[in-house]
Amino acid sequence: MKSHRKVLTFQTPNRIAFVNITPEVERALKESGVKEGLCLVNPMHITASVFINDDESGLHHDYERFLEELVPHEPTSAYRHNRTGEDNGDAHIKRQVMGREVVVAITEGKLDFGPWEQIFYGEWDGRRSKRVLIKIIGE
Amino acid sequence: MKSHRKVLTFQTPNRIAFVNITPEVERALKESGVKEGLCLVNPMHITASVFINDDESGLHHDYERFLEELVPHEPTSAYRHNRTGEDNGDAHIKRQVMGREVVVAITEGKLDFGPWEQIFYGEWDGRRSKRVLIKIIGE
Amino acid sequence: MKSHRKVLTFQTPNRIAFVNITPEVERALKESGVKEGLCLVNPMHITASVFINDDESGLHHDYERFLEELVPHEPTSAYRHNRTGEDNGDAHIKRQVMGREVVVAITEGKLDFGPWEQIFYGEWDGRRSKRVLIKIIGE
Repeated sequence: MKSHRKVLTFQTPNRIAFVNITPEVERALKESGVKEGLCLVNPMHITASVFINDDESGLHHDYERFLEELVPHEPTSAYRHNRTGEDNGDAHIKRQVMGREVVVAITEGKLDFGPWEQIFYGEWDGRRSKRVLIKIIGE
Repeated sequence: MKSHRKVLTFQTPNRIAFVNITPEVERALKESGVKEGLCLVNPMHITASVFINDDESGLHHDYERFLEELVPHEPTSAYRHNRTGEDNGDAHIKRQVMGREVVVAITEGKLDFGPWEQIFYGEWDGRRSKRVLIKIIGE
Repeated sequence: MKSHRKVLTFQTPNRIAFVNITPEVERALKESGVKEGLCLVNPMHITASVFINDDESGLHHDYERFLEELVPHEPTSAYRHNRTGEDNGDAHIKRQVMGREVVVAITEGKLDFGPWEQIFYGEWDGRRSKRVLIKIIGE
């Protein structure tokens, strides 16, 4: 069994952001030499998500509006977590709604995807440095 | 390490649908010959989910009502994604709430499940052909 | 390829509860002897979640309030699932919002975590015995 590990780093200019990381995951897969296996991609932080959906800016606008209506950032006093001095109580909830990680099948050396599947880093509390872990196992 | 890949195809008659795919996943596991490992099951589309819950029609009714109240299909003009000519902006959000994939442990050649766990394909934008990927790795 | 399986058992005194199970997962990993691989952790029940977030009691209060507002336990007659004689229709929906399982990378014999990642058992229908499965594969 082979394994390969890679870390990506992000600092998004806005609080909420969507970054297509499919090319970086494909690069890591190539480096790994794995032909058949599984690829895990997850943020190493708890106010961000990795998810698979469409690379369409209108959709990302809809996600942001949906999440902001469901779990508003303000008033920040609405979240007991923010009594710790943080202002990201909403971001910890948004992350649960959108999920933490994705696991992707690797077949014949490629991410085994349908036609529209793209991997996104979803940032819910940006403007500081964050990491994403890629872990690949297989043969 | 062994690996096995199988694709299922669905066309549901309604926009929203729940299909119990546990027997198909068990069949794929038997074909694989894997005794200890992991089994990934995911839709290859981005307006559907694979999830694990109870095979009870009242529950599926509750899921549909919950999702439709949270993310209504209409008015379709409420979703910026629909400016692309699609009418499934809601389905891309429903998919995130219900999740994309499941990873199931394989132990002694069987899906390592509690008494009520069943694998479902959840369709949020049906009435056309869709695929589900099963990827099994292990020994 | 090595594999290791372990089951944890819980009985929480309240309907909703959060239990940090990171030490138990670390213990299972040590027992496995796996240095590089993947670790799956999932409830064997369908009214509970395993998720990764912060070990902060204010945040857990926020999660409970968010889930209870989104999917109220009462009136129990609001859920068709409860016509089966159950009163946990809400818990099956809360589980989908918070997710079922986590998959964690194993690197150099450790859970490959960022600084704040902790694994939680989230109980949405407690006061009875429930199980969590840990499955580790790798080398």
